[in-house]
Amino acid sequence: MTIERQDMNTRMSKIVKHNGTVYLAGQLCKPEDESLDLSGQTQSMLDKVDGLLIKAGSDRNHILSAAIFVSDMSKVNDMNAVYDAWVPQGHCPVRYCVEAQFARKELLVEISIVAAEIE
Amino acid sequence: MTIERQDMNTRMSKIVKHNGTVYLAGQLCKPEDESLDLSGQTQSMLDKVDGLLIKAGSDRNHILSAAIFVSDMSKVNDMNAVYDAWVPQGHCPVRYCVEAQFARKELLVEISIVAAEIE
Amino acid sequence: MTIERQDMNTRMSKIVKHNGTVYLAGQLCKPEDESLDLSGQTQSMLDKVDGLLIKAGSDRNHILSAAIFVSDMSKVNDMNAVYDAWVPQGHCPVRYCVEAQFARKELLVEISIVAAEIE
Repeated sequence: MTIERQDMNTRMSKIVKHNGTVYLAGQLCKPEDESLDLSGQTQSMLDKVDGLLIKAGSDRNHILSAAIFVSDMSKVNDMNAVYDAWVPQGHCPVRYCVEAQFARKELLVEISIVAAEIE
Repeated sequence: MTIERQDMNTRMSKIVKHNGTVYLAGQLCKPEDESLDLSGQTQSMLDKVDGLLIKAGSDRNHILSAAIFVSDMSKVNDMNAVYDAWVPQGHCPVRYCVEAQFARKELLVEISIVAAEIE
Repeated sequence: MTIERQDMNTRMSKIVKHNGTVYLAGQLCKPEDESLDLSGQTQSMLDKVDGLLIKAGSDRNHILSAAIFVSDMSKVNDMNAVYDAWVPQGHCPVRYCVEAQFARKELLVEISIVAAEIE
């Protein structure tokens, strides 16, 4: 049961793999998308999740759980509309979604993913 | 290491099983209990957890970790009193508990559970 | 796949082990350090994490994921400075960090850790 870490910097790894389980660092939108609204930031964030899952040897069909944080719960339906179109039917992970604030006010949504490695 | 998903809708699964680990979707109280106070909502939420764990092939004695969110931390003792009576002595999971807001103001508590499958 | 629980009280275990994975209860600073600022509380909290990981048969090099909660995101850099000095280069876990409030206003930071057991 080795630990494999990918996309490391001095603070965190973006991917950690152990015992067939893939842990992704919390994903915000791409830096160039921080001026977008909640819908736009959600799509940008999920694009990053797709890229990391592929790099990790997993994919969108193999997500086990998602924790979602939005900065303004009154707009959660905007996030949900983008999320629902992205999540693969028949392969939906468990999830929870609560309100939380981030390091900067521009940031509107973050997701923490645990997935299964494809064997 | 197959992934098993139960109680799926178009947004999420309520149960995901992988490699002996059971992930439950974040559980709020039953819809008919949303007018209850924090104690009542906590009991209703934990009743749902019990049902999902049984359906998943686990049970209250096999919970590994619990993340608990309450909308008003000044009342956390009301949640804890119900939780402490529910959690099985000798089989307590790790937990953390922080304040967070939910999609609607009526909602006072949510729990996210990871458990072990009974072999 | 047995479940091993350590440091149990009537509410929670501080350590739960299952299938090579170690779950730690959310860690705050030591009680005697609650008057410290965010930097001091972060160091105190991470000292507790080190102790629990050793007790669990893991260590700082084997952390898989960290969820960090700070009560005032405008001061997150103070937490990060202590965290960055603590996290072992080449062995960084994934992480996310959001703002959240705790049971008492004195408490400024909490961390939830999942690690790998050393074989």
